[in-house]
Amino acid sequence: MRFEKKDILDINSLSVEEISMILDIAQGMKEISQRSVKKVPTLRGKTIILFFEEPSTRTKLSFDTAAKRLSADSIAISKSSSSMVKGESLIDTAKNLDAMNPDIIVIRHSSSGAAHIVSKRVRASVINAGDGIHAHPSQALLDMMSVRERKGKIQGLKIAIIGDIAHSRVARSDIRGFSKMGALVHVFAPETMMPKGVEILGCKKALSIESCIENADVVMMLRIQKERQSNMLFPTEREYSNLFGLNKKRLSLAKKDVIVMHPGPMNRGVEISNEIADGENSLILDQVTNGVALRMALFYLLGGSSRNLSESSGGYRKS
Amino acid sequence: MRFEKKDILDINSLSVEEISMILDIAQGMKEISQRSVKKVPTLRGKTIILFFEEPSTRTKLSFDTAAKRLSADSIAISKSSSSMVKGESLIDTAKNLDAMNPDIIVIRHSSSGAAHIVSKRVRASVINAGDGIHAHPSQALLDMMSVRERKGKIQGLKIAIIGDIAHSRVARSDIRGFSKMGALVHVFAPETMMPKGVEILGCKKALSIESCIENADVVMMLRIQKERQSNMLFPTEREYSNLFGLNKKRLSLAKKDVIVMHPGPMNRGVEISNEIADGENSLILDQVTNGVALRMALFYLLGGSSRNLSESSGGYRKS
Amino acid sequence: MRFEKKDILDINSLSVEEISMILDIAQGMKEISQRSVKKVPTLRGKTIILFFEEPSTRTKLSFDTAAKRLSADSIAISKSSSSMVKGESLIDTAKNLDAMNPDIIVIRHSSSGAAHIVSKRVRASVINAGDGIHAHPSQALLDMMSVRERKGKIQGLKIAIIGDIAHSRVARSDIRGFSKMGALVHVFAPETMMPKGVEILGCKKALSIESCIENADVVMMLRIQKERQSNMLFPTEREYSNLFGLNKKRLSLAKKDVIVMHPGPMNRGVEISNEIADGENSLILDQVTNGVALRMALFYLLGGSSRNLSESSGGYRKS
Repeated sequence: MRFEKKDILDINSLSVEEISMILDIAQGMKEISQRSVKKVPTLRGKTIILFFEEPSTRTKLSFDTAAKRLSADSIAISKSSSSMVKGESLIDTAKNLDAMNPDIIVIRHSSSGAAHIVSKRVRASVINAGDGIHAHPSQALLDMMSVRERKGKIQGLKIAIIGDIAHSRVARSDIRGFSKMGALVHVFAPETMMPKGVEILGCKKALSIESCIENADVVMMLRIQKERQSNMLFPTEREYSNLFGLNKKRLSLAKKDVIVMHPGPMNRGVEISNEIADGENSLILDQVTNGVALRMALFYLLGGSSRNLSESSGGYRKS
Repeated sequence: MRFEKKDILDINSLSVEEISMILDIAQGMKEISQRSVKKVPTLRGKTIILFFEEPSTRTKLSFDTAAKRLSADSIAISKSSSSMVKGESLIDTAKNLDAMNPDIIVIRHSSSGAAHIVSKRVRASVINAGDGIHAHPSQALLDMMSVRERKGKIQGLKIAIIGDIAHSRVARSDIRGFSKMGALVHVFAPETMMPKGVEILGCKKALSIESCIENADVVMMLRIQKERQSNMLFPTEREYSNLFGLNKKRLSLAKKDVIVMHPGPMNRGVEISNEIADGENSLILDQVTNGVALRMALFYLLGGSSRNLSESSGGYRKS
Repeated sequence: MRFEKKDILDINSLSVEEISMILDIAQGMKEISQRSVKKVPTLRGKTIILFFEEPSTRTKLSFDTAAKRLSADSIAISKSSSSMVKGESLIDTAKNLDAMNPDIIVIRHSSSGAAHIVSKRVRASVINAGDGIHAHPSQALLDMMSVRERKGKIQGLKIAIIGDIAHSRVARSDIRGFSKMGALVHVFAPETMMPKGVEILGCKKALSIESCIENADVVMMLRIQKERQSNMLFPTEREYSNLFGLNKKRLSLAKKDVIVMHPGPMNRGVEISNEIADGENSLILDQVTNGVALRMALFYLLGGSSRNLSESSGGYRKS
């Protein structure tokens, strides 16, 4: 099978086969980061632009690290240093970036749909690193990779996703991804944070946090945006923790070998208790480690892969 | 011929022969960015510091991309991360940078003359990436490259430069560059934006925007700084567009095969209409593409070139 | 001898032998930055994260340059782009960085003790690039390197350290370092800037600036933080200069071949006069040059060194 997509914009546009292929390659990439010399020449001479209009530590660092471990040249631009302060439109900025002949543009943007708009106007491959409340496909893919790695499969697992579903692009992408791969996704959110018609994404609304967690193989907690407190979406952190946070008692309702996930950064003591965050069921740091491998796989598939690499070059396996 | 300049500070200090040599090499560099592996080892082990005291997307990204495609190590520092917040003088900052043994320092600064001052105090080569309202030689050189590439020559062409001449370092450098290379440069600006004695740079003041454009081979529109509106240099964007903007009707006065240029970022609907910006005469994105090649040429001439590369190494042509 | 430390957190935890080894290797590294091709493959495939929570030009640039000259991949994150704006704790940020498998994390942080806390939680080696008012070991090491290079030894020299001792991590690390290496360190500070019990670090409090400088082999001036003026720690810049600044007259009290040092950035005309800063006794720019070499040595010892490099690879000496 060859990977023929130009862009990675959302989970929706990826087939089950494409997702499986990405996860397989990411699993192979993971070993590179554990070597003493953690670098392969696969994407030497490729230019990757990291265009982050929103601030981010881990996602940008993860993409940047992934690029460098494949020997690509990565160039970061951020809002503060960008012409957007001079009022240039997103499309003009994108066309300008593209005119410099990058191979891949990674874009994070506050507007839902930004990556799609850009992808239609540029020759380069585009990876959506988060657009508004719409999608964050590389996060969903690394979550799937992490679950599959630990559980050996995704098919048939019960995945509980809990928290601010309405404002979470991670939740949207994860619901679509896990349900596409055959998991049973249950969601629970405070009323003010549950989007209408969420079932259309492929999940079941739970009536209580307890029923959501009950018998789950995976419990994924979402970050609560503290600034939403002032908007009255939730009353106090303490109350949020009491009503909607993951603690030992609630987690005991899940399967014994449940894994706990969080896209980070965590609000400890709010959506997740310290003992759970640091407990033996936590997969939270594995998610970060797998994030680098997953992004290496995306870069490889878009920038190198079957389209550009001859068989004899041996792909990414040779150092 | 050997290129013997230590620095690229302004167009004024470059001879016709030197400009031609830069444009020739830039034209050769352009092909590298179109390869699958867009990287040559020419400047491996050279250190290039990108010192941008003013914000910029495209210029900084262009220099950074150019450096990486030549395998140089580029290191960016910006004002926010710099000691200048601690009150250090430009000269002390420059001498500190120089003490780290860079080969080239690219500097953008809000003060006219900053690059000259720095160049006299440092051992490294200095490229002026824009200083106050004084000069922006790499922009003028890429503009000349773009015109020469499309028209086959610069000599004898009529070049119209229109807009905020007074506050534009791009205009100053372009007027000097194109007139030095034998073009006939005509300028037009709103009264409040026309510097006194502009003719000394080597151009002719047009009496109307129409006469400026009439029979032109090239029309270059300058960015209007919107913040100047509050300073009463122009009334409203709408009025500016009506009086001084480039639209289809005005462009019809030029030669049929006229090319339209803009240093970017554009204010669409103000100094240039959408249909012109995206039209078939527009060379605006070619300018961006050529910018990378032109900066590769500058890095090559200052950092590698005849001074450091033996003939047998084959210069930049080998990968 | 093998270098067995995982981290470089402060001078205190380094033995005399370890300091000597670092200085020896740094001296060897210095030559690399003077080559035409200033890059060795020693740390190819190593990932170095530069995590600067406080702004900095020279220190960050110095570490970055050092990493690139050893062919390591360096990735910078700064506060503005970091999750810390989202309220994540330092420990969680550090564990997230570590999960991406870096070899070395360089950290600068406003809290004293930050580097120690991080070092206990991460697998990567940690270099403290300045934490609060506590320590700045790489600065002290480059200062020792600079003195040893010029004087041929440290043992027995009289080192005068003058200025805002209380708020200076540089002073703390330098006092410990130079006294550990056998120098006689004398300190002088305005009363409001002299910490109680400073002698415990291994120095002697001078009763006057004159007696501090008298017969000194080295005079190191500290930066005065101008913002402290509003806190009434000192009255005016002029008065500070008169009472506590280094000028020609005061310096004449020192040995004839005295060397003058300053960690930068300097306040010219405040703690140091122009003629001294730029005079023949000044070692200030040598400090910057040596800083790159010293940081290369630290990276080499932590990231490559005896633990990872076979003898046959020849270490850093081969290009």
